[in-house]
Amino acid sequence: MTITVGFLVFPGIQLLDLAGPYEIFSALPDGDIHLFWKTREPVACSSGMRFYPTTTLSEGPLVDVLCIPGGVGINPLLLDKEVQAWVQRQAPAARFVTSVCTGALLLGAAGLLAGRRATTHWRYHDLLAEFGAIPVRERVVREGNLITGGGVTAGTDFGLVVAAALRGQAVAEEVQLALEYAPEPPFQAGRPEDAPKDIVEAVRRRTETLRAERERMIRQWIKARILSG
Amino acid sequence: MTITVGFLVFPGIQLLDLAGPYEIFSALPDGDIHLFWKTREPVACSSGMRFYPTTTLSEGPLVDVLCIPGGVGINPLLLDKEVQAWVQRQAPAARFVTSVCTGALLLGAAGLLAGRRATTHWRYHDLLAEFGAIPVRERVVREGNLITGGGVTAGTDFGLVVAAALRGQAVAEEVQLALEYAPEPPFQAGRPEDAPKDIVEAVRRRTETLRAERERMIRQWIKARILSG
Repeated sequence: MTITVGFLVFPGIQLLDLAGPYEIFSALPDGDIHLFWKTREPVACSSGMRFYPTTTLSEGPLVDVLCIPGGVGINPLLLDKEVQAWVQRQAPAARFVTSVCTGALLLGAAGLLAGRRATTHWRYHDLLAEFGAIPVRERVVREGNLITGGGVTAGTDFGLVVAAALRGQAVAEEVQLALEYAPEPPFQAGRPEDAPKDIVEAVRRRTETLRAERERMIRQWIKARILSG
Repeated sequence: MTITVGFLVFPGIQLLDLAGPYEIFSALPDGDIHLFWKTREPVACSSGMRFYPTTTLSEGPLVDVLCIPGGVGINPLLLDKEVQAWVQRQAPAARFVTSVCTGALLLGAAGLLAGRRATTHWRYHDLLAEFGAIPVRERVVREGNLITGGGVTAGTDFGLVVAAALRGQAVAEEVQLALEYAPEPPFQAGRPEDAPKDIVEAVRRRTETLRAERERMIRQWIKARILSG
């Protein structure tokens, strides 16, 4: 039976958030992958590459797996009613509602994380609580049909977890072997707990503005919710 | 000082081969990334997504880092004189000549691996010897200014090794932390040495046709070389 997967793509998406699970789901037998955006015009990812959505929010199908990748471009979506309405329309029909990296913040803004365990990129992890979620510092967090992945490269671990949930462990292992996923990071700096202190500080400083913008967006989101009753 | 990076992109490229190093190099201070192809028309990756090259083989600059990703689409390039001429023009000027996954086969066809240690995807690893290379089963193999990565997801480990060679370990660690690269594969099936036997057999069977086509291309390449003296 065909499994339809719908990724939200948007200007400023982080390509690698998408590419890990995209390759994994594409390799599943009878996978049918859609890249949704408002229009079919090319979108530019955060690192510049321009690529094509395959369908639009209004025209694409309801999907079995809804997946929201992250990236700097997630920020305006936290206040975007059209996108949130699409997420809210897809979620109840989906077998799995998922996100990678800061895509989780959009699930939060769409009201899908309240009271539920979830994860996101370490730098924005505590912000999940603003949406009523229970932030959990794990690489992949599964709570019922909600599966969230951590920052960027967690998308690959996440993708295999979702693949196994969809098609069983053996199929997921085949995909893992085909992608030769036996990682050997050359340095021990992948988490703030492991990285040298000065490296953590450097990344904190470099992401200060982005984090401040996210906090501002979330404050606006909360205000809008209060005003709307 | 700006570091220019040139990726070859082509129809049938494996998106994740590209996306790992692309995100890493894009995150380097003063990185200037180019996606080269014959035209600026969109190319479709092996899993379908269509994206834009940023320059052409004839118009783009000589780059500091030449990187050839792999994918099913590498096959015709093994006999493509225009692409090989471009690789041969870029390589002598580059600080680093690199590949991910089956991109190494194109470096081989361009005559750049003779007598040198290199790696590629496990399923095609032995084929490196056909180009006179010394196949080494490691995740990332560095020999002088030649740096090759293993299959698909090895591109991320590879990218960090190249980033450290270009900008030092601290910068590479910052990028690793920003990408939260602390992998936790849910299954132990990333290498044929680790995966269950039936999984290995299944992937071997599924890639039989692709492997046969690669062998056929390489035989043609060898024949053409002999005929041309």
